[in-house]
Amino acid sequence: VNNPSFEPNFYAVIPAGGVGSRLWPLSRVASPKFLQDFTDSGRSLLQETFARLAAFLPAERILVVTGAAHADEVARQLPQLPEANLLIEPSPRESTAAIALATSVALQRDADAIVGSFAADHVIIDQAGFESVVSVAAEQAQLGHIVAIGIEPTSATSAYGYIKCGETLSESVCRVQSFVEKPSQAVAAEYLASGAYLWNAGMFIARAERLIGAIELTEPELVRAVEKLAAALSAGQHQAADTELWSSIKKVAIDYSVAEPAAARGEMRVVRASFDWTDVGDFASLSDLGDQTFDQVRTLGDVRVVSLDSTGLVVGSGGKVVVISGLDDVVVVDTPDALLITTREKAQTTKDAVANLREMGHDDVL
Amino acid sequence: VNNPSFEPNFYAVIPAGGVGSRLWPLSRVASPKFLQDFTDSGRSLLQETFARLAAFLPAERILVVTGAAHADEVARQLPQLPEANLLIEPSPRESTAAIALATSVALQRDADAIVGSFAADHVIIDQAGFESVVSVAAEQAQLGHIVAIGIEPTSATSAYGYIKCGETLSESVCRVQSFVEKPSQAVAAEYLASGAYLWNAGMFIARAERLIGAIELTEPELVRAVEKLAAALSAGQHQAADTELWSSIKKVAIDYSVAEPAAARGEMRVVRASFDWTDVGDFASLSDLGDQTFDQVRTLGDVRVVSLDSTGLVVGSGGKVVVISGLDDVVVVDTPDALLITTREKAQTTKDAVANLREMGHDDVL
Repeated sequence: VNNPSFEPNFYAVIPAGGVGSRLWPLSRVASPKFLQDFTDSGRSLLQETFARLAAFLPAERILVVTGAAHADEVARQLPQLPEANLLIEPSPRESTAAIALATSVALQRDADAIVGSFAADHVIIDQAGFESVVSVAAEQAQLGHIVAIGIEPTSATSAYGYIKCGETLSESVCRVQSFVEKPSQAVAAEYLASGAYLWNAGMFIARAERLIGAIELTEPELVRAVEKLAAALSAGQHQAADTELWSSIKKVAIDYSVAEPAAARGEMRVVRASFDWTDVGDFASLSDLGDQTFDQVRTLGDVRVVSLDSTGLVVGSGGKVVVISGLDDVVVVDTPDALLITTREKAQTTKDAVANLREMGHDDVL
Repeated sequence: VNNPSFEPNFYAVIPAGGVGSRLWPLSRVASPKFLQDFTDSGRSLLQETFARLAAFLPAERILVVTGAAHADEVARQLPQLPEANLLIEPSPRESTAAIALATSVALQRDADAIVGSFAADHVIIDQAGFESVVSVAAEQAQLGHIVAIGIEPTSATSAYGYIKCGETLSESVCRVQSFVEKPSQAVAAEYLASGAYLWNAGMFIARAERLIGAIELTEPELVRAVEKLAAALSAGQHQAADTELWSSIKKVAIDYSVAEPAAARGEMRVVRASFDWTDVGDFASLSDLGDQTFDQVRTLGDVRVVSLDSTGLVVGSGGKVVVISGLDDVVVVDTPDALLITTREKAQTTKDAVANLREMGHDDVL
């Protein structure tokens, strides 16, 4: 099923880390969202992500970076993934370290490697649209650019970061003028109306050498440590990485170490994409994925919902009956040992609630 | 512990019927509220009611009327209750039939019997206050009156029916001018301000002969059928009551067959009571019973609640964690197979939700 026209030196990187505490109680420390079937597809978000890439890339050119705690489950869920392509982080160090590690490994295998980083927890249905955009991005990367993918917004959502387009370079490519953090709803509406803004899909594509060089500009020590670990991994020591060295690495998101500085230097390009895309980052975005509807309430999971004068989202399991009466834009997430009830507007504050749980000693449900 | 001063011919009747669907999913067809420990007291509402009466009456003069489906559990929960005092209804026929049946049985045992009817699902803490009011009511009944108990309202609640006092007959007794159905909040506030209205506690006390006579005025066929069944029960056939005759009995609440017509004839008296009293009829009233509080959220049951910017009631079990964020006056009732989420204002509509469940075929959680 590989796309023969696709760049033979293209490596996909899937950083599979993060607890997803804004999706508590579905996402837990021991069972993060990317290992779960959030979309009732029968496959976990990670499996979906892997399959999306394996449709046009051999498994040998897909690298997954995950924490030691989840390595066994990742290996179980992805039997096609070569053992040497499962890169295990001794401790979580944020996206720059994870992507740099995989990029470094790719570079050791192929000095001409192009790497594309694809989050393990995004949902995309339009496979052909996705492949075609990644292909354009890979061509741009081959030319030496650092490339982002920007989704044409279909709503004025405040749930995503945005990319502001600068100079138009071709029908689907423009220079990135700047990255913009999640805006307010009102500002998001202006962005949508202007046509100059795209959703930041958090996918970055570049020649491996170019990407490592860009990280080196802002985080030289990080690159030195990662290269040492990558060499050890390539030598077959992936179960015995230097834990101490790794835990000294600075935690920084790729957005800050690479994307924003590169955009400021005028070195980032963005490919406009019109495929469907959802970052399952919180329940506000998850509610867009509910596939059944009882009156005005969306549901996810094996749950029987009866609603009276209500709107919102219900996530449940085990065939449980959930009755909602007289509540608007409510978000209900029921699990056997923990239940969250909030509103769509407050869905982003779930992170604070999880912090409270930790303070109160309810670690059993974290 | 019996009160020696109490009328030796006083029989207490506990009608223990009704599914309590306004308290779904706590109250179920197979496990109605009166058989459950709703107040975290360690005893069911029925056991509390029985104990409240057994504190001043011998068990021989307490009669419990319940459905065939719950008879075994009632007997298990009330080991002190003589077998002959557990009156089993072959099918539910509402309060007039249940009370008439027990009254008829009492009459067969003692032609001078006074009966008092006390719902199985009310909560009263002030035992001394309760006993003293029942004693006054029994004296009034001895004089030939049909007597209600009216609680001095402590809030402008729309959850209860009201009794309008007419002519004052003594410090604590007045003639009932009328019974008033549950009013709106605004009307309830007027009632509270006027001082002329009492909460209808649904307790009726009268000489047995007098009560049967009053029922006969409006429901003569009901009385004939009940007397036949009472005779059979007294003859020891309480497991073999005439099911067909029983199921022909009209379903009518005692309020309509006796209380309202008797009040209209000027024959009802009400004893003013100031003991605490809660009719655990719905979650709005149940929320007054929550004994722990996390911030502004009351909790009932073995549940760990974390609330952010929320007020309301959470009922749970099994140590489950419930996080509520950004919801006001919310009512959350979680059970292993069914979950209700509503508002205090909408708590009364739970009955409609249960009807919807039946229509949708979710009989397993009814």
